[in-house]
This record gives sequence, C-alpha cells and structure tokens, in this order.
Amino acid sequence: MQTETGRIEAFSDGVFAIAITLLVLDLKVPYAVEKGLAAALLKQWPAYLAYVMSYMYIGVMWINHHRLFTHIRRSDDTLLVLNLLLLLGITSVPFPTSVLSSHLGGPQQRTAAIVYDGVYLVIAVLFNLLWRHAVARELLDKNYLQSAAMITKQYAFGPVIYLVCLLTAWISVPISLILNGVLAVFFLIPPHKLAARKA
Amino acid sequence: MQTETGRIEAFSDGVFAIAITLLVLDLKVPYAVEKGLAAALLKQWPAYLAYVMSYMYIGVMWINHHRLFTHIRRSDDTLLVLNLLLLLGITSVPFPTSVLSSHLGGPQQRTAAIVYDGVYLVIAVLFNLLWRHAVARELLDKNYLQSAAMITKQYAFGPVIYLVCLLTAWISVPISLILNGVLAVFFLIPPHKLAARKA
Amino acid sequence: MQTETGRIEAFSDGVFAIAITLLVLDLKVPYAVEKGLAAALLKQWPAYLAYVMSYMYIGVMWINHHRLFTHIRRSDDTLLVLNLLLLLGITSVPFPTSVLSSHLGGPQQRTAAIVYDGVYLVIAVLFNLLWRHAVARELLDKNYLQSAAMITKQYAFGPVIYLVCLLTAWISVPISLILNGVLAVFFLIPPHKLAARKA
Amino acid sequence: MQTETGRIEAFSDGVFAIAITLLVLDLKVPYAVEKGLAAALLKQWPAYLAYVMSYMYIGVMWINHHRLFTHIRRSDDTLLVLNLLLLLGITSVPFPTSVLSSHLGGPQQRTAAIVYDGVYLVIAVLFNLLWRHAVARELLDKNYLQSAAMITKQYAFGPVIYLVCLLTAWISVPISLILNGVLAVFFLIPPHKLAARKA
Repeated sequence: MQTETGRIEAFSDGVFAIAITLLVLDLKVPYAVEKGLAAALLKQWPAYLAYVMSYMYIGVMWINHHRLFTHIRRSDDTLLVLNLLLLLGITSVPFPTSVLSSHLGGPQQRTAAIVYDGVYLVIAVLFNLLWRHAVARELLDKNYLQSAAMITKQYAFGPVIYLVCLLTAWISVPISLILNGVLAVFFLIPPHKLAARKA
Repeated sequence: MQTETGRIEAFSDGVFAIAITLLVLDLKVPYAVEKGLAAALLKQWPAYLAYVMSYMYIGVMWINHHRLFTHIRRSDDTLLVLNLLLLLGITSVPFPTSVLSSHLGGPQQRTAAIVYDGVYLVIAVLFNLLWRHAVARELLDKNYLQSAAMITKQYAFGPVIYLVCLLTAWISVPISLILNGVLAVFFLIPPHKLAARKA
Repeated sequence: MQTETGRIEAFSDGVFAIAITLLVLDLKVPYAVEKGLAAALLKQWPAYLAYVMSYMYIGVMWINHHRLFTHIRRSDDTLLVLNLLLLLGITSVPFPTSVLSSHLGGPQQRTAAIVYDGVYLVIAVLFNLLWRHAVARELLDKNYLQSAAMITKQYAFGPVIYLVCLLTAWISVPISLILNGVLAVFFLIPPHKLAARKA
Repeated sequence: MQTETGRIEAFSDGVFAIAITLLVLDLKVPYAVEKGLAAALLKQWPAYLAYVMSYMYIGVMWINHHRLFTHIRRSDDTLLVLNLLLLLGITSVPFPTSVLSSHLGGPQQRTAAIVYDGVYLVIAVLFNLLWRHAVARELLDKNYLQSAAMITKQYAFGPVIYLVCLLTAWISVPISLILNGVLAVFFLIPPHKLAARKA
C-alpha cells in the first residue's frame, strides 16, 4: 500500500525536535560547589562538549533526513519500518551522549567513545538502508534522479568513515571525537556542492 | 458537532512522537563500573531490550493509528474521548517499560511482565472501542468500506492474543515477551495483505 | 498587527501534547519491593489517580482550546500574551500533579489538594481572560457568534466552580477531587449541547 | 540550494514548544516538610521565579522567531546552520534556569545570574547573526522591507542591553533580573509600534 510521505515527515520531524531538545536534561547543576559555582560549572566541560556535539549531530541528521524526503515521493511498508529503525537510532542518542559526558577525561573514556561512535555507525548504516531501499523500489521523484545519484555516492562514505572514527578511539579519544565533528560538517554539505568542488 | 479529524491526527502524532522519544530517559548511565564500563553497560541488557520492544510497539501503534484515521473521515465527541483514552494508554507505556527493565531477570520478573502485557491488553481493547465506535456511527470514508471490514477482523484478534500473551507470563516470561514481539509484527502487516495471504 | 491564528494553534497543540505526555515521568518504579512488586505498585495508587486526573484534565483543556480557536479568526499582540500565560498554566500542571501524588493519603494532603485546585482555578481565569479579550476586540468569526455566546456563558461558571472546588478541600479532600473530575466532564460537553439540555 | 522555509519553521516551533514545556521538570516536590508542605513549597520561590522568567523569555523569543520568518521567504545552507545554533541556545535555557533556581538567594547567586544572563546574551547575538545573514543574502520578502529595517534597528539593541544586564549582576542580582524581564517586554513589542511611539 502506498501512503503519502507527508505524515512520515511530520512524525519524524517531531521525533528529531524532541530528541534534540531532551539532550539538555543531561546537563546537571553541580552539587559540590566548595570551590565556587564557577569552578564547579567549568569542571563539567565534558558534559557541555558532548551536549553541543550531539546537538549538532542530530541537527545535521535532521537536515539529511529532510534532504532524502525531498527526493522520496512515495512510501511502502518497508520504508515505514526502516524509518522507524532510523528514528530508533536518533532517539537513542541522548544515552551514548550521557555515557560519553560521564566518562570523558576519565579512565573509561575509550569505552565511552566507542559506544558513542558505535551508535553513529549504526545510524549511518540505517540511513544507507533506507535510502537504497527507496532507490531500489523506485520510490523517488523522477525529476531529481541526478541529485539522488550524488546522495548515494556521499552516503556510501558514511559507514566506512564512522567505522574509521570508531577504530581511531583505540589510538586517541580526542582525535576520534574531532573526526566525528568533521563528519558532521561533511554531511551538512549538500551532495551537489561536493560534486561541484571535485569537478 | 462534527469536527474534521486533521487536528486530532496532528495532536495524536505529537503525543506518539513524544512518548516514543521519552523512552530513552529510562536508559541510565551505570554508576558502578569497577569491572569496567563495558561490563557495566552490558549488564543493563534488560533496559535495552525493554527500550527496543516498547519503541517498536509504539511505532507500530502509530502506524495503526494512522491506518485507522485514513479510514475515519468525521469525528464526534465520543471519538475525541476514546482517542484521548487510547493516547492515555500510549503515553503510559514508558512506565511499564521501566517496571519491566528494572525487574527483568530478577525474582519479580513475572509480575513485571504481567504489568507490561496488561497495559498492552488495555491498549488493544481501546483500539477496538475507538474503531468500533467509528464503524457504528458511520464516521468512515464510504470509499474504503471493504478495507475497513478487514481492519475490524484483524483488530478482533488483538485483545484475545494479548490476553494469551499475559497469561503466558505465568508459564514463562521469555515466551510471553517473544509472543509480544510477534504481535507487534502482526499489527505491522496491513490487513489487506493478511487477507491476501489467507486467500 | 494581525497575524493568522494557524501558527498559534500549532504551537499550542505542541505544548499541550508535550505537557500531557510528560505527566508519565511522575510515575516511578518502586524501589522497596520486600512485600512483592505487585504490593509495591498498588501502594502507589495516589500517583496513578493523579496521573489519570491530570491527563484527562489537560486533554479536556486541549479540546476547549481547540473549540475557542474554531471561533477565533484573527489574533493581536494581547491574544498572543494571554495565550502564552494560559499555556504557562497548562505546562505547569505536572508540578501540582506531582505535589498531589506525593501527599495524597498523607497528613499534608489538604495543602496538596489546595495547590492542585488552585492551579486549575488560575487556568479557568486565564481561559476567561483570553476568550473575553477575543470577544471584546472582535477577533471572532462572524458566522459563529451565537455559539460564541454559549461559550461565554459556560466559561463564566469555570472560575466560580473551581473556587468552590478549592474551598471544598478544607472540608474533604476526596470530595474536592471528585468535584474536580466532574468539572472536567462539564467542560468536555460542547456548550450548544448544554443549551439544548436546558431548553 | 534554496529550500522553502516551511519545514524550518515547523521544526523550530517544535523545539520551542518542547523547550518551554521541559522547564517544569525543574520544579521538584519538596522532601523536607517538617514545617508543613505550604512552608516547604513557599521556600522554593526562586524555582518558581526562574520558571516563570524563562517561560516568558522562551515564549517571547518564539514570537520573535515567528516575526523574523514572516519576513524571510527563502533559505540557504548558512541560514539552516545559524537557525540550528539559535535553537541550541534556546534548548539550553532549562540548564541556566536550573542553575539560577538552585542558587538564587544563596552565596553563589551572582555567578548563577551571570551564567543566566550570559546565555541570553549569546542568544541575542545569534538572533542578530541570523537576521543580518537573511538581510545580506536578500532572503527577505520584498514586500516587507520597511518593517524589516525596523527589526534590524530593534535587534541591534539586543546584545548591548543584555551585556549591560550581565554586567549589572556584579552590582545587584535583583536589578539584573528585573532588567532581564524588562528586556523580554521590549522584544515582545513589535518594531513598528516602537517606531510609532518614537515618532
């Protein structure tokens, strides 16, 4: 059964908006303020860093989701399920963010970074599954096939680089997180601009 | 007074999107990490299992709600109230999820599973009440009466099987939860496909 | 400056949907389960009662808000501010709900019930202020002036009866809460039906 | 690539609605009620004050965001990113609110007020960046250029006065907070009315 994609987009937008806003609940007011509130607040820098990183990540993924559904004109049951799984990944982001912010700078930070990167790797795979299903089942708008091909190319990099990002955590957690941030910028750039730069 | 169903759907979509996203708040960063963060995270498997199960459940119920309102064209006061009661069931899901994730694998897991299945049983009954009211008061779109009849058939199974699911918890909690997952898949399948398979 | 009411309604719907869904966060999994999980869950009955009462209340207020904005066709700056204040009342409901559920059945339940009823009294006053402003500034759709007059009559009862409800808490907390529930039903009924019954 | 602004507005509305509703989670039921629940509730006045201030602030910022996007007709990649950064500021408001409510009236209240004002200063800067980008790239509706010029003037005051507000916290925290409230009223007033008053 074909359903129009409007309600999927509206529901997904709601989920993205809520997930991005819930991140703030991980920022806690410090209890121990013997050295002053300012010092106690500054000591929480991993929480702010993780907050901003995850916020920008979900924001960029929202832009990408929007970009995909600009091309997808029809839906089917499998697309609905793949979209639900993708949103499962997105809504879970506050949890690895909290794991990272609790352990960044501590002895267990490697494990925390691997969990964090791991969730992003899974989301990258799910983005590819959803998109490739839409391409294979010809759910796309015929007028944008050229720009759709560019998306396919850009997205193919996703899982590979997020895997590299995850493996880098064994060498250096800071480098892994910086690479993670660079990836967000990479997926912020629309694919036709990437193509234009290469040309 | 008849009101158009658009705003009911938008409000319901909002509630579904928030309920599905709030589930993540039940995932807590482990405090005791003496055996390493990885071990502490893995030990929390009941929380992840309950999270994914409830997420997929709410997702499938959202698809079903959408399916019903594709057929329902008009609204009345009773429909508004029945829809509010149905959403009461949906918004409460994070609570039994939390009960289940806190006790799964523990000595009280039977009670937790019964509470969990019980909420789903109530939701199944409410889905039937809403749908049967819409059928009885002729609130349906006249063009889809055939597919509406298939929905009525599929939904009639809901309360019965969720009751079986609940009773199974006395015999075996894992089997009850697996049956619960199978039910979600059953309600994911559009009724006309079920009819086609039988034929 | 006149603005169309569409975006006010969409924003308000979002706030209602979130407030109604956040209520579930007040339901906590019991820690002390020496007498069994079932007994521990049952002991939390005030929390469930407060949850269902507040849920139905916000749901009915959402229906009322919808009803008002079916009549209001134009907006002005004061309406924007009055609507924000009304939503301030609605979004605060989880707090008095939590106060009530923590103290219902305990020695401080009178104070808790007065706080609870007090918030509802304030909301009833704000509904009247918003509606009377819309009437006075002629922001209404001219086609529905008759049904608008019925709303004015029904709403005039609100603050008075919620005040009675609050004062009743000094005599009996249970009666006050039952009266509160009856009031929700009263505001669920569309004003033209109330008029029809009287006639 | 130009995209229509509709989905940006819908997403932003969702984020504003969630952020404004999450503020209530900072209101906690008091545990220590030896002197009675009423006394314990009244003792929490800083939490209520911070709640109402932040609520009205986010509400007024939502009205302003709406006002800007009434003028902005087209979007580009930079606008998307600037809007995400602005929403980052808005969604973070529950955290400085919580910092303020935990320390208002205590020995560390100056630091808390500076953090609170500081977030508002950053948001004021981001509002200007977004707006000036839209003006510079000619993303505005040509029919409203005159009223757009008034917005530019009003907004230019924002960062300056929020800086004054922040610096005032060194002299007096109460005055700083009152000034903060006055600023919210200033940005509530539509720019064409400010112009009319001056004329």
